[in-house]
Amino acid sequence: MSTNPVTITVPEGGPFIEIVREFDAPVDAVYRAHATPELVKKWLGPNGYEMEIEYYDVRTGGRYRYTHRNGEGEEFVFNGVFHTARPNELIIQTFEYEDFPDAVSIETLRFEELPNGRTRLVGHSVYPNQEARDGMAASGMEQGVREGYERLDEILGS
Amino acid sequence: MSTNPVTITVPEGGPFIEIVREFDAPVDAVYRAHATPELVKKWLGPNGYEMEIEYYDVRTGGRYRYTHRNGEGEEFVFNGVFHTARPNELIIQTFEYEDFPDAVSIETLRFEELPNGRTRLVGHSVYPNQEARDGMAASGMEQGVREGYERLDEILGS
Repeated sequence: MSTNPVTITVPEGGPFIEIVREFDAPVDAVYRAHATPELVKKWLGPNGYEMEIEYYDVRTGGRYRYTHRNGEGEEFVFNGVFHTARPNELIIQTFEYEDFPDAVSIETLRFEELPNGRTRLVGHSVYPNQEARDGMAASGMEQGVREGYERLDEILGS
Repeated sequence: MSTNPVTITVPEGGPFIEIVREFDAPVDAVYRAHATPELVKKWLGPNGYEMEIEYYDVRTGGRYRYTHRNGEGEEFVFNGVFHTARPNELIIQTFEYEDFPDAVSIETLRFEELPNGRTRLVGHSVYPNQEARDGMAASGMEQGVREGYERLDEILGS
């Protein structure tokens, strides 16, 4: 199936990363794929990584913690809390990579309904300082985001 | 009793507010005054406001929601989640003023032990965009922070 491009913006003068991506699927299906651990596991992160979820409780006040493991057995552990989870509309969550403890970012993810049963996902991440944002932008996250959303396309199309 | 000055920095070129304040009390007492709802109620916010706590659960993954009510009966409701609560060291929490829903900031509060049983509190707040930060800085929050910490001095001294 076809996929849509992802637009990642790393603006000057602010500790932000913006990610916009459209999906050829209705908003409730895109939200469900973000809020259901068994589905998240199938698409989040770069290709070739295994995702092991300790907990992933997408509701206001819920928490998550998971490990990404690559082909060499290296592990990357992430955790956070869901400040807001409003089905088919909005997720606001914190995000911590445990190798950089206490440098916690906050991410707002808006689910926008488009005509013809399509969806636009608008992500806005805010880092605790400019260095943390620059480090994330330089980490190869763009590839991980692009590949993850391509796998999400496959899940949504099947 | 004497009080210490509060230093509030609103930097150019980033959606941050920094607040530094020392206390003539040991770090465990200062932390306890932040983590115990019955104590928080006595000092958080400007003078002349009543604080009504719906819940205030200072632990990693806990949530809070409270109302500040002024002399005219106006109400200001706030909520958030605690991403991290590490006793006598660190609190990282989200913060939402419900009249500006979904504009969620994240605040890191470090409790630093100083010689002679004193404590330095270092707060770093990050807003979702520059406008939200500027709005908060213009809201009269400086007075509220200063008055709140003066009441905290009284609690710590008694």
